[in-house]
Amino acid sequence: MMKSDKILDIAKRRGFFWQNSLVHGPIAGFYDYAHLGASLKRKWENEWRNFFLGLDDNFHEIQACQIMPEEVFKASGHLESFIDPMVKCKKCGNIERADHVLSAKIEGDFEGVSLEKMSELIMKHDMRCEKCKGKFSEVGIINMMFPLDIGTGKMKRTGYLSPETAQGAYVNFKLEFEALRRRLPMGLAIVGKAFRNEISPRNVLIRMREFTQAELQIFFDPGKIGEHPRFREVAGYKLRLYPEGNRKSGRIDELRCSEVVSKLKLPRFYVYHMARIQQFYLNHLKLPRDRFRFKQLTDDEKAFYNKYHWDIELNLESLGGFSEMAGCHYRTDHDLKGHQRVSGESMEVSVDGRKFMPHVLELSFGVDRNVYAMFELALKEEKDRVVMKFPRRVSPFDVGLFPLVNKDGLQEKTREIQVMLKESGFSVFYDEGGSIGRRYRRIDEVGIAAGVTVDYESLENDDATLRDRDSMKQIRVKVSELAGVLGEFIAGKELEHLGVVLK
Amino acid sequence: MMKSDKILDIAKRRGFFWQNSLVHGPIAGFYDYAHLGASLKRKWENEWRNFFLGLDDNFHEIQACQIMPEEVFKASGHLESFIDPMVKCKKCGNIERADHVLSAKIEGDFEGVSLEKMSELIMKHDMRCEKCKGKFSEVGIINMMFPLDIGTGKMKRTGYLSPETAQGAYVNFKLEFEALRRRLPMGLAIVGKAFRNEISPRNVLIRMREFTQAELQIFFDPGKIGEHPRFREVAGYKLRLYPEGNRKSGRIDELRCSEVVSKLKLPRFYVYHMARIQQFYLNHLKLPRDRFRFKQLTDDEKAFYNKYHWDIELNLESLGGFSEMAGCHYRTDHDLKGHQRVSGESMEVSVDGRKFMPHVLELSFGVDRNVYAMFELALKEEKDRVVMKFPRRVSPFDVGLFPLVNKDGLQEKTREIQVMLKESGFSVFYDEGGSIGRRYRRIDEVGIAAGVTVDYESLENDDATLRDRDSMKQIRVKVSELAGVLGEFIAGKELEHLGVVLK
Repeated sequence: MMKSDKILDIAKRRGFFWQNSLVHGPIAGFYDYAHLGASLKRKWENEWRNFFLGLDDNFHEIQACQIMPEEVFKASGHLESFIDPMVKCKKCGNIERADHVLSAKIEGDFEGVSLEKMSELIMKHDMRCEKCKGKFSEVGIINMMFPLDIGTGKMKRTGYLSPETAQGAYVNFKLEFEALRRRLPMGLAIVGKAFRNEISPRNVLIRMREFTQAELQIFFDPGKIGEHPRFREVAGYKLRLYPEGNRKSGRIDELRCSEVVSKLKLPRFYVYHMARIQQFYLNHLKLPRDRFRFKQLTDDEKAFYNKYHWDIELNLESLGGFSEMAGCHYRTDHDLKGHQRVSGESMEVSVDGRKFMPHVLELSFGVDRNVYAMFELALKEEKDRVVMKFPRRVSPFDVGLFPLVNKDGLQEKTREIQVMLKESGFSVFYDEGGSIGRRYRRIDEVGIAAGVTVDYESLENDDATLRDRDSMKQIRVKVSELAGVLGEFIAGKELEHLGVVLK
Repeated sequence: MMKSDKILDIAKRRGFFWQNSLVHGPIAGFYDYAHLGASLKRKWENEWRNFFLGLDDNFHEIQACQIMPEEVFKASGHLESFIDPMVKCKKCGNIERADHVLSAKIEGDFEGVSLEKMSELIMKHDMRCEKCKGKFSEVGIINMMFPLDIGTGKMKRTGYLSPETAQGAYVNFKLEFEALRRRLPMGLAIVGKAFRNEISPRNVLIRMREFTQAELQIFFDPGKIGEHPRFREVAGYKLRLYPEGNRKSGRIDELRCSEVVSKLKLPRFYVYHMARIQQFYLNHLKLPRDRFRFKQLTDDEKAFYNKYHWDIELNLESLGGFSEMAGCHYRTDHDLKGHQRVSGESMEVSVDGRKFMPHVLELSFGVDRNVYAMFELALKEEKDRVVMKFPRRVSPFDVGLFPLVNKDGLQEKTREIQVMLKESGFSVFYDEGGSIGRRYRRIDEVGIAAGVTVDYESLENDDATLRDRDSMKQIRVKVSELAGVLGEFIAGKELEHLGVVLK
């Protein structure tokens, strides 16, 4: 079985990601994206942005500060309750997350279990410090935010690095509601960094201390939660669901959206967005259907303010099964109420002559987790080659571009094509080093979606060979049509529908 | 004269940017980008990325952590010398930047003046606290980095929020040099946040505590600084220069790159990149030529390790004249040497049989400053309308899209065009509210580059009206050709070359 440290090893060798400051002795939970990983991540973010902001003309991206004043986290509840259970070794002072100590020894997930219960279990099983075998203290708590002193002297204020991007949307809600001409639903998306002082970061990009989120906060009229103007577009679409009741059987149910509404009693506004999320993974990125499911959280597992909470999970071998990639959270008016209480400013709006507090549906994605999943799912070992089969839309480069040989004007011709493809918005990896077979192996190994080779015939016929990374099939394409054909290829069309496959 | 607070006022009203956490009482030096500002900023970043990474196949973008361990800042020198001079009021405890206290009372720039000299001047002129008229302490220093405790207990490490993105490239240099097959020059770009605990943030987006940089670190063979393989492409291109010797006259010299090499004794490798920077501003973004200059820094002004340092400045009314937007810094081997010293790991490379320490040329851009400049330069008041004339490539939306009326199938036709334009990669603002004149005014006011209107004729002829924001001229374009025409328009072509201008 492939573990996450093996994934990291491959990612490092191929130029995707590695620990930050390796040369100086890295700190756990901090990773840098090398040139290929940075491109993969940026592409995933762009696909997310295009897909989710494309759902509604009134969904927009904003950028909020990562450092925000203490009042924000009073309002959000993070100051009081963004805490982890921890135990301290009485002998060596080592600190561990209590639920992780437990789950390392006892089957099960201990997130959300009471402190008393955890203390009791640790005593009962006489669990000890891994480092020195010392006894643990009672289970205590620790706040996971990073505090900061801002300014100096009399002007000093306390701020925190934001542990999620969501608050940036909430503090801007009223201003944007005015700027966007007072219409609901209104969506505010933020793609940005978040910071958590995790006691035990783990699994490479999965639980980090500095990480990237892509979150869309949809503010809507709670009176309209039972409807969505485009629901009929998804009514017949089948969702892959893992409801609470299936925990024992492990069964995944496939239900049409209309059935999810009638049988699971979920409101149409919520189910519509679940459908779009699944379509993003399965239809847009084209990930394998059986890797995907929605997992319903139990009341113990979910935050008390989330009325409906289903996680989006992908099945990853290195993580031992289905793992959280995103969440679909109906947060009610919890957040706006909090900011109203602390600021004293009304968060109510007037729409169609009614005054009310909007509710929030949050679509929250861990970008690094998704990049990690893309990376693991792409790894393939075939008989004759090592290849990464990324979804074409997020391949680190769209196309590898090669002159067959470095003479007789082939380089110049290839450079012209490079300029043209770049101007059409493609990411291009130009390579003239080594045999053509070696150059194909090089792009296969890092998952570049297509290869374009310029040969002697190209000079005569003004065309080039286009090669599909996955099938290794090739077609000839006129240079004038290359950008168009490549666009359709990246969007998902197969080569046989774009030209005559060469024997 | 328009001041920066007036700019902020307009930016807030039109939905571009405003202070973070306004609802809770903002902290000085923190700004959020509203939906239009976020789009403008993202577009500027993308243009920067495409332009500068497009200069060389071996220039790549990476993403590094914002929090890095203390050792990084020992190596960089920030721990010791990233300090501001400050004075504390003996009566009320208020802290001010000493050089700002001085420049508020005495003509001149006091950055870089010695602490003793500043103390002397403050005493001599009996300068007092603005708030309580108390006397100031001697001038002291304060480190501007934000420190953080990471982890807990025995595992605790000290880290800092990075005050520049550059260090992220340096700590990754050796790993990337291997991943990118050991070739120089190698460029590592980072577009990311940086953090400085400024004593007195000022001028809105110009001096913030949390801000975005776009930096390209070019690692090269110092033996080749006198050449660049593409120098002849720029040899005849004229740079707008404000050398040290012109400080009294205020004159800007225009010199061909070849003359800059021969007369100012700057190396070709450096001058080549100056030319590309000026082309980015003047040819790519098409900003007015007379707003731009390179300013040579004096030995007192520049960091000791920068052998050549010219700032890129734009002339902005709200800032009282030419102001720093970017810098072109020849940092020699200062940075890699520092990381080698602290880590004990060699930063030398072997290329073409020679072993040496690469030198660094840094192209460093303040993204927020550039956004601020774009915003100010775009503001125009014409006789009949308020309009923002952003460079087309960075307009917050490429195109406003309108059905002339909301009936008879015009909306459906417009929606089809919307889908098509989005798929072609354009940012589209769809609007069906109010008269067509009012909708044009709305997009003019926020600087959307083009307007496309679908009318009754469109249903018959499958075409639409394309309107240029700046000239208000219009042409008719076939829907099938719209994406192509719009692409050329955004890239800079005028309407009269794209169709027949309507009377």
